[in-house]
Amino acid sequence: MNAVGLIVEYNPFHNGHAFHLNASREAADAEVVIAVMSGNFLQRGEPALVSKWYRTKMALLNGVDIVFELPYMFAVQKAEIFAGGAVSILEAAGCDAVCFGSESGDLSSFLQTHNFITEHKQQIEENIHRFIETGVSYPKAVSLAYHQLSDSTSYLDLAKPNNILGIEYIKAIKKQKSRLKPMTVARKNADYHDEHFASETIASATSIRKAIFSKEGDQNSIGQYVPVQTKQLLTEYLKEYQVFHQWENYWNYLQFRLLQCSPAELRDIYEVEEGLENRLLTAALVSGSFHEFMERIKTKRYTWTRLQRLCVHILTNTKKGQMAGPSDTASYLRLLGMTRKGKEYLNRRKKDFSLPLVSKLSSYKEREIQLDLKAARVYSLGAANHLVKELMNQEFKQQPIIIEKG
Amino acid sequence: MNAVGLIVEYNPFHNGHAFHLNASREAADAEVVIAVMSGNFLQRGEPALVSKWYRTKMALLNGVDIVFELPYMFAVQKAEIFAGGAVSILEAAGCDAVCFGSESGDLSSFLQTHNFITEHKQQIEENIHRFIETGVSYPKAVSLAYHQLSDSTSYLDLAKPNNILGIEYIKAIKKQKSRLKPMTVARKNADYHDEHFASETIASATSIRKAIFSKEGDQNSIGQYVPVQTKQLLTEYLKEYQVFHQWENYWNYLQFRLLQCSPAELRDIYEVEEGLENRLLTAALVSGSFHEFMERIKTKRYTWTRLQRLCVHILTNTKKGQMAGPSDTASYLRLLGMTRKGKEYLNRRKKDFSLPLVSKLSSYKEREIQLDLKAARVYSLGAANHLVKELMNQEFKQQPIIIEKG
Repeated sequence: MNAVGLIVEYNPFHNGHAFHLNASREAADAEVVIAVMSGNFLQRGEPALVSKWYRTKMALLNGVDIVFELPYMFAVQKAEIFAGGAVSILEAAGCDAVCFGSESGDLSSFLQTHNFITEHKQQIEENIHRFIETGVSYPKAVSLAYHQLSDSTSYLDLAKPNNILGIEYIKAIKKQKSRLKPMTVARKNADYHDEHFASETIASATSIRKAIFSKEGDQNSIGQYVPVQTKQLLTEYLKEYQVFHQWENYWNYLQFRLLQCSPAELRDIYEVEEGLENRLLTAALVSGSFHEFMERIKTKRYTWTRLQRLCVHILTNTKKGQMAGPSDTASYLRLLGMTRKGKEYLNRRKKDFSLPLVSKLSSYKEREIQLDLKAARVYSLGAANHLVKELMNQEFKQQPIIIEKG
Repeated sequence: MNAVGLIVEYNPFHNGHAFHLNASREAADAEVVIAVMSGNFLQRGEPALVSKWYRTKMALLNGVDIVFELPYMFAVQKAEIFAGGAVSILEAAGCDAVCFGSESGDLSSFLQTHNFITEHKQQIEENIHRFIETGVSYPKAVSLAYHQLSDSTSYLDLAKPNNILGIEYIKAIKKQKSRLKPMTVARKNADYHDEHFASETIASATSIRKAIFSKEGDQNSIGQYVPVQTKQLLTEYLKEYQVFHQWENYWNYLQFRLLQCSPAELRDIYEVEEGLENRLLTAALVSGSFHEFMERIKTKRYTWTRLQRLCVHILTNTKKGQMAGPSDTASYLRLLGMTRKGKEYLNRRKKDFSLPLVSKLSSYKEREIQLDLKAARVYSLGAANHLVKELMNQEFKQQPIIIEKG
């Protein structure tokens, strides 16, 4: 059974994802589609709209056969570490290829860019360092450093998050000496960061979330951009937990923690760099919302995304040394759900998996999974008050979701 | 100007407090009444119904001339440390006497009991130790140990919190070699812990709070038990911050902190004894309210009050070593408010005060006052969401309250 791996967040699953999924299955000529998906907190440093269990259902009902969780220690990270974790999971689960979406759908531009970066590694690093010293953010410095060296337009624009991710997948495959074949399929319209609907059926997850949270926001307005199952599951989630999760639901907790903790404790948190702690503590005292807080702490030096990730780590109290580094690979496969076909694949192949398969939480208590568990518990505080307990305890009780189709 | 000192919490100020205040002024033949009052969190380990500023107004409008804050490091403590801090403040502020309420109004029973305890110190301590080993709480063990030795009914019942406080005031005066003359006046009806209204005009603060928080609770039902100013100020507070503060307002924060912190971090918190941390962490996961949480962590060994104090310390993130010990005395006089007469007293006497007078917060940044500031900030999270910021920043902006009468 040929298996293609996808690296996803599905926040929420929309028509563009469905297109990518089907195109990937076709391109790889795969029988089985395996997704590694961020849990309750995402790479951009945001809580997912709905829990990972609901997003797993969306995936399984739309053609994914197996969903593994990308552990918190890789998921709430910059592209390099995110990619390293995701690739190691797909490799361990026996995938033959990983297929990511891109504007061009042309793998050679990724490979060329990767080669160029590898060949000019030292020069680029020196340039990055020099640009950072001018006060710009790390991603901006990478993009500038790269453009300063290359003179061809056939190289990718590394200011775009999706291009960076593609390059990082290829880097991770080489670094880990993975058997995964890198592939890319062209995305349909909609830029990653688009905030407005631009096409009839395809819209970015960002614009879909924006519509959901807009004052008039109801799920009807997104109907044309998401599969019917997404719409149903969103409605169901709202009924069950009375919220869609967003940062503002957690602002009180973030503020409380910043009010009660000492600068030294804050310095222990992952990604809190020297000097940033006082900026955070001062802003917490005078801000009335998460957005206001972010506006206050923002500087040219740190991207919004990076600061949001840092805020997630404050919420989950994640310390320096608890997160994965650029050379780390995953140490378990947490199964979130599967179709009948996915189950068949697991039964046939799991004896060859190079990592332990975790389907019940109580049986696996490693350091890493404790972070996922804590993240799930903190995430649950975003639900309506009387439902927090229920959502929180689901993490331990929930069995992998099984969908009888496929 | 002869000054009598009172040690109070005024949560809220009621007719019994007015009676005690006037009786004390008369008994001490005092021109000036000085109160040392717990701040936003109280000795029982609860948030005060309304902020210390509103409770200061209640006091000043009803006959108190000067209100000093009992710092958090003394206020959220067992009787011995609470008393030590309060006595040291009244002494430093030049009071001639301290006058506490008691059932009997008979100082000799306090002095006799104190003498008896002093003479039998070692024996009592051995007995206390023995009783604690049977698994009872510390206050219960004290009471049992004491009764085992004494055979006279003229000794005080040390199971009653107010009797323990009286004894501790006397102990603190002796220990600190204070010039304060201990005095007591008889209280009118209403036991400290009474939950029901028993008299026409006097009720315990506990029963008044209970009425306020009862489902039908409005301030009208308490009208006969509190001065008109208390009623007005409660109404005003509710209008301004849209809440009366109670533990349930802070339950989400306590739960969040317990979800995100490690057992080791919890062990660092003041009063968290070995082994208690796991009990707290486990209970936090399955409790849906503060009351439910308390019921789960309660054991014969720890009093409800002691556990509530510990929960306040978790909220304020107060570590072992940050709180006062039994031999500590206050290091500043934080002025919360005064009448015209109180101001006159301060002007005449402050040059002789043995501690610095703090009337503006920014001018005084000692370690101790940081705890008070943090407590005020955490307390403000109990207000309605959009008013948190306002209440939080009041602590820095608020000048001492001045009432032009008296």
